[in-house]
Amino acid sequence: MRPRLVLFGDSITEQSFASGGWGAALANHFGRQADVVLRGLSGYNTRWALKVLDRAMEEAANQSADPAAVTVFFGANDASLPDQQQAHQHVPLDEYQTNLRAICAYFKNRWPAAAIILITPPPIHEPARIRDMYGDNAASRQPERTNEAAGTYAQACIDVAKELDHPVIDIWTKMQQFPDWQTSALCDGLHFTPFGNKILFDEVLKTLEIIGFSQQSLRSDLPLFHEIDPKDPLKALEI
Amino acid sequence: MRPRLVLFGDSITEQSFASGGWGAALANHFGRQADVVLRGLSGYNTRWALKVLDRAMEEAANQSADPAAVTVFFGANDASLPDQQQAHQHVPLDEYQTNLRAICAYFKNRWPAAAIILITPPPIHEPARIRDMYGDNAASRQPERTNEAAGTYAQACIDVAKELDHPVIDIWTKMQQFPDWQTSALCDGLHFTPFGNKILFDEVLKTLEIIGFSQQSLRSDLPLFHEIDPKDPLKALEI
Repeated sequence: MRPRLVLFGDSITEQSFASGGWGAALANHFGRQADVVLRGLSGYNTRWALKVLDRAMEEAANQSADPAAVTVFFGANDASLPDQQQAHQHVPLDEYQTNLRAICAYFKNRWPAAAIILITPPPIHEPARIRDMYGDNAASRQPERTNEAAGTYAQACIDVAKELDHPVIDIWTKMQQFPDWQTSALCDGLHFTPFGNKILFDEVLKTLEIIGFSQQSLRSDLPLFHEIDPKDPLKALEI
Repeated sequence: MRPRLVLFGDSITEQSFASGGWGAALANHFGRQADVVLRGLSGYNTRWALKVLDRAMEEAANQSADPAAVTVFFGANDASLPDQQQAHQHVPLDEYQTNLRAICAYFKNRWPAAAIILITPPPIHEPARIRDMYGDNAASRQPERTNEAAGTYAQACIDVAKELDHPVIDIWTKMQQFPDWQTSALCDGLHFTPFGNKILFDEVLKTLEIIGFSQQSLRSDLPLFHEIDPKDPLKALEI
């Protein structure tokens, strides 16, 4: 059975198949070994995600075997400030953790064999957020998200992962270790540039490798070209 | 049921999820509407593809509904010259057509509801092929593929498509309509640059639209962010 990776998250997941995206990079990396199933819901927070979870996974689950892994990547919207422009996306910290636990419990129940990989919200570059929200009318505006709030939600996500013993990718911390991350990794202070996508892609690969899911450990679908003998090509293709 | 698009072909399909790739672009375009299933087999010709077809589609078929469409994109390897470096990939023109018919018959039988979209081999830029095959020792070498041979196989593919009444994308002709296609659309005289990928992506979209498969005609999975009322977000998410 060809393994599957399910990507569940908000816009940073939904957009992960755009040019240079981390989801497409996974599909490319495992092109002969695994299917990558995209379930991104732009703008959604954990409250909304939980509400639609069963419907979102309906066809992703319609298979004879559990996925090998599912990434759960929410929090960027939950961490929107409760008194700014995107207040309706805000979810209080306690509820964010409760929702994450419920999402993980759903997957653990539905797909007992799947690894659940949590990903923290990314860092925020506030000036770019203000420009993105208010354009030329940005003077004396406040950002709708702050890096500090994102960091608080990132830590809360890490705590839930540790509590449930799931692997977690702390992209909030990791991304800020790169020079000029504000503009090299983020395109609008929130979403990822191709370089930012590469940072996450590398972290996902590392995490998958830890759970035993790698190019080396996976069987390739059908003989690779270099395994086919030019003098007797059909031999390698026999069953 | 979320519709599926199955991409079946050689390296130009297998690499279609690399950065800027046409497959990833389809997955991104239909991110909230359809799943794109990658079944690319680098180096394969139609003879080899036919031999492994049932195994290649094993899990792609393991679903309760037929895919909406499948792209069949072979010929670049079949058209390798029979007396040059990649002779073992060569398939005679008659057999190429017979194999294409058999591949189409397989899909028609297995997935009666799926549209079968044939794609011709792309054009070839011969000097780049010689460089790719022989590097610095290229003097007085012959290319292993020619644009003329690719064109002959492209026409043969079109003829099979017309005979079977399947839509066909003549990427051999289309690509050559773009300025400097030799280097703007092809990166090594055979595989696609991001611009070349964009040309094919646009053609696939047009063809899908003709068969009634488009963003406009497809239902989106779950409410889109702009459909969610900020004053009562959960309302849109009720079943």
